[in-house]
Amino acid sequence: MITLRPEPLTAEGFAPFGTVIQRDGAENYLINDGTTRRFNALSHVDPGPEGEVIVSIFHGARRPSPIAIRMLERHPLGDQAFFPLGGGDWLVVVAPGEQPTPANCRCFRAGPDQGVRYARGVWHHPLLVLDATQDFLVLDRHGPGTNLEERIFEPDTETVIEGI
Amino acid sequence: MITLRPEPLTAEGFAPFGTVIQRDGAENYLINDGTTRRFNALSHVDPGPEGEVIVSIFHGARRPSPIAIRMLERHPLGDQAFFPLGGGDWLVVVAPGEQPTPANCRCFRAGPDQGVRYARGVWHHPLLVLDATQDFLVLDRHGPGTNLEERIFEPDTETVIEGI
Repeated sequence: MITLRPEPLTAEGFAPFGTVIQRDGAENYLINDGTTRRFNALSHVDPGPEGEVIVSIFHGARRPSPIAIRMLERHPLGDQAFFPLGGGDWLVVVAPGEQPTPANCRCFRAGPDQGVRYARGVWHHPLLVLDATQDFLVLDRHGPGTNLEERIFEPDTETVIEGI
Repeated sequence: MITLRPEPLTAEGFAPFGTVIQRDGAENYLINDGTTRRFNALSHVDPGPEGEVIVSIFHGARRPSPIAIRMLERHPLGDQAFFPLGGGDWLVVVAPGEQPTPANCRCFRAGPDQGVRYARGVWHHPLLVLDATQDFLVLDRHGPGTNLEERIFEPDTETVIEGI
């Protein structure tokens, strides 16, 4: 059995996979006659060639414990970004390179004020929430072409997240 | 004195100005092995020619009562979308056409689960929150060119929002 233990989600640690969308460390300034503070350009979202950015909401339910990682997916044509709409911590599982395996997965624990942008083509697990349910604003690509690939792991090795 | 009384924010009522970003009435379906419901494509966000979509957070404070409308602004090069990150109701003030005046402003009261996309070039008031403070995820354009126009109303007519 392979176990993944969540590490804290930081901009530096997540940099190979995309962007952490968070106020911490962001350029910010007052606008609107001083009534609004803008934390500017926390991320971009690139929908890729011939794509447009669309806004969706994902209502995610917690998976049974222990949370098992049996596959990853990726979007070869455009970025995908998630930002939580309330709720608590949630999990981000990614793998580097072109050939993801259970052994090279990494798990990050995101806070309730942290979103992520998965860069185009980065292998990641579908939404993993720790609350019973949690909602996210999701930004991704609408456009022509097939923007989903899945990699199913071999069933002989179980991969679970521990320490949550 | 001109008074604006908020009307409920509905997709139909707001259609001349952009999109209401909300689950109600949206196409939705289960994904991720049935653990996630996707409310799909609630809006698109068009950053305009040579633009890219960026994600920011606005931390807005309530203005003094009565809330006065002294100007509008617009973004001639790209869309701008707001979605609340918790909190309560908030206000959306817009005006049709090219020449906004206090008399043709309209005020909508948005719920805590409603965002809006201001279509490119639509005159609107900067962020108006009803809580002491409220945070929003904001999607707009990054790119070359001047993407802000302001129209300051004549000071001899006071325009205030009533009934809030």
